[in-house]
Amino acid sequence: MNSDPLKSIKVGICGFGTVGGGTLSLIQTNGEEIARRLGRDITVSRIASRSLNVSEFATSGIHVGTDPFDVVNDPDVDIVVETLGGFEPAFEVVRQALANGKHVVTANKALIAERGNALFAVAKEKGVTLSFESSVAGGIPIIKALREGLAANKINWLAGIINGTGNFILTEMAEKQRQFDDVLRQAQELGYAEADPTFDVEGIDAAHKLTIMASIAFGIPLQFEKTYTEGISHIQPEDINYAQELGYRIKHLGIARISDKGIEMRVHPTLISRKRLLANVDGVGNAVLVNGNAVGSTLYSGPGAGAGATASAVVADIIDIGRHLVAGIAAPIVPALGYQRPHQDLSVMNIEDIESEYYLRITAKDVLGVMAKISRILQDYAISIEAIIQKEADSDSVPIVILTHSAVERQLNKAIAAIEELDDVVAAVTRIRVENFSD
Amino acid sequence: MNSDPLKSIKVGICGFGTVGGGTLSLIQTNGEEIARRLGRDITVSRIASRSLNVSEFATSGIHVGTDPFDVVNDPDVDIVVETLGGFEPAFEVVRQALANGKHVVTANKALIAERGNALFAVAKEKGVTLSFESSVAGGIPIIKALREGLAANKINWLAGIINGTGNFILTEMAEKQRQFDDVLRQAQELGYAEADPTFDVEGIDAAHKLTIMASIAFGIPLQFEKTYTEGISHIQPEDINYAQELGYRIKHLGIARISDKGIEMRVHPTLISRKRLLANVDGVGNAVLVNGNAVGSTLYSGPGAGAGATASAVVADIIDIGRHLVAGIAAPIVPALGYQRPHQDLSVMNIEDIESEYYLRITAKDVLGVMAKISRILQDYAISIEAIIQKEADSDSVPIVILTHSAVERQLNKAIAAIEELDDVVAAVTRIRVENFSD
Repeated sequence: MNSDPLKSIKVGICGFGTVGGGTLSLIQTNGEEIARRLGRDITVSRIASRSLNVSEFATSGIHVGTDPFDVVNDPDVDIVVETLGGFEPAFEVVRQALANGKHVVTANKALIAERGNALFAVAKEKGVTLSFESSVAGGIPIIKALREGLAANKINWLAGIINGTGNFILTEMAEKQRQFDDVLRQAQELGYAEADPTFDVEGIDAAHKLTIMASIAFGIPLQFEKTYTEGISHIQPEDINYAQELGYRIKHLGIARISDKGIEMRVHPTLISRKRLLANVDGVGNAVLVNGNAVGSTLYSGPGAGAGATASAVVADIIDIGRHLVAGIAAPIVPALGYQRPHQDLSVMNIEDIESEYYLRITAKDVLGVMAKISRILQDYAISIEAIIQKEADSDSVPIVILTHSAVERQLNKAIAAIEELDDVVAAVTRIRVENFSD
Repeated sequence: MNSDPLKSIKVGICGFGTVGGGTLSLIQTNGEEIARRLGRDITVSRIASRSLNVSEFATSGIHVGTDPFDVVNDPDVDIVVETLGGFEPAFEVVRQALANGKHVVTANKALIAERGNALFAVAKEKGVTLSFESSVAGGIPIIKALREGLAANKINWLAGIINGTGNFILTEMAEKQRQFDDVLRQAQELGYAEADPTFDVEGIDAAHKLTIMASIAFGIPLQFEKTYTEGISHIQPEDINYAQELGYRIKHLGIARISDKGIEMRVHPTLISRKRLLANVDGVGNAVLVNGNAVGSTLYSGPGAGAGATASAVVADIIDIGRHLVAGIAAPIVPALGYQRPHQDLSVMNIEDIESEYYLRITAKDVLGVMAKISRILQDYAISIEAIIQKEADSDSVPIVILTHSAVERQLNKAIAAIEELDDVVAAVTRIRVENFSD
């Protein structure tokens, strides 16, 4: 263990894309201030990347190479930063680093959400730290807030805008009355969205982050496979407009909640009151609203991506580990997922068992009696109506927008199926969940 | 040091008002969940208060008494919670507890801001922790965010709504077109404001909190006496309306900033763009916006007061200390004010040396040429005008509202003095600073 106060803390970086490069740059730019905080220098001593310009580092004193395992096996490296992304070789790189008794900082949300349980077990066995602040909401220190700042609370629920790409698209659609496909293309041109946007717009990336937050909030193992995921590609500008008319905005939220019925983990477009700060987080911004039984609701917002913001979180993790080393201890004082004794018996609910309010947009023929038929179906499934918007028809069909009171999703699904079977209903029903957060 | 894993961590509470009572209640209510996180039980073993109903605790196993020094000198107490408020006997209680080798958690912002330097020195010498998360922004873990979450950044500036009473008053004035005095009376009836509201509405409470945040943000000693403080009692509903017309809201902000010219620490009413989330934090809510050179701007908002919110932060501090004890270490791994090697040579600027944009409301006779005279004075002091509102006169005098570009405050003060000397200007000029935060 590096506890010599005169020796700098040595960092090895695996993967040198946006985040890896940002990490090196930040350690160099803010090195003096960081050393004042930490009481020790931090030095990047080794980098592994397949796309590195070696000559650039000729006089830097940094060993550069292509094999991340050279970093992991370097006895001089105290902390390994994993910014390779994906599962292979990232999993084995992190596992091997931990097994070698090194601390690891990763920005890899997929790795933590899907294979974190195994990695945290290795870290615990070896008495080292595996940190991942940068994996959720970029530069916003939300992991620290959940794991430490709010540790006195039972967390009731949390809800987050945790994918900047999706939020950029929904913001543009709302502000400029644009179509999803059109904005997506622009997001790709701006570099906000990948060539294959599935990960972002179908909610997989957000589900990774939600899985991690839920695990810390409720003290449960990571269970990515149980997180319900629904994307935003089916949202139409008219839904955004109707929502606005009803006093709501549509955001792509990750929601986790605990109740007597179990744990909810779900990512989907959601109507939220435009009076909420969360509804006013626009563009590529991220924000997480957390409700605890003592504190009530607190909000954390800021940039969820970008080299500087992500590196801010990576280097904060490095400083955290460094502060342990300066104090002469290796094992982290805070457990990776926040609990010394996690709950083993809390089950994640099926999406059909959740209760929610709903926004429905039904496209029907402009004929007498259709509204009566729809009302009867909703009544049959014990779903009561809170508000209706029915406009003049400007074609053969007319949109009927309904806001329901709280209902069980299984019942709502049956009602939707019945409505879609009506002869007068001419298109699939659009269904968007509504959240009126109870404080 | 209490490092026996079977022994619970013993807490003694000095002062049993809202916060002290909330702390006991929270430890009891969430005890099981907290023990799961911490790996050890937390027990309140002793309480000292002059207004305690002893019989209430007869079967509780808690020693109750009137003398806080009995808590401080109890060898069985690991952590002393100080919620007495004020300076005497709070200072001596905390000092003695630290000198006895006990950890201390305090919610006392005045004590930390005005006498913290001496107390932190004792804590450091004794290798114990003095925590104060609850002293700033209630339940929002802003101290942890500044000291740890954002530790990789050079903080450029921060700005906070950090007094709920003042924010409630300004919100009511804005939403309901009410007068300051009228809303203040209501706030007193609701228990949001003290009988003597000076502390809140004149910005002293906010200045205490700002002093603490600035110290952590920039790594400087606590310097409350150098914090500029201006209250909100002179704000008129018409100022709020003109601000609105110009696209701004008026908030009572604590602002800290660092530049080549030095450090700014100032509390005053401020116009901020209504597009900012910060401008939309209403009622008794608190929020702090922090700009770091790597992460950019992150916002932290939530309840700034109340038994539950404040206790949430007090007990988070207790858990933090508990996690050190569980790990077998006493001294905190994070320095109290975030820096192992603070800056000793950074000076705090005089308010007259700051640069800002300004809102001016001038009351002038409705005569020809007055605007020309005002413009000439501003020009003489190199102050350029960004916007003007001049309405029809509905009496002999007419309000002229001016938004300036950035100017040095000393120059602006001279210009205001010259304007007030004009024969046609019939009342003191209202001056409110404007912040257009640079991200």
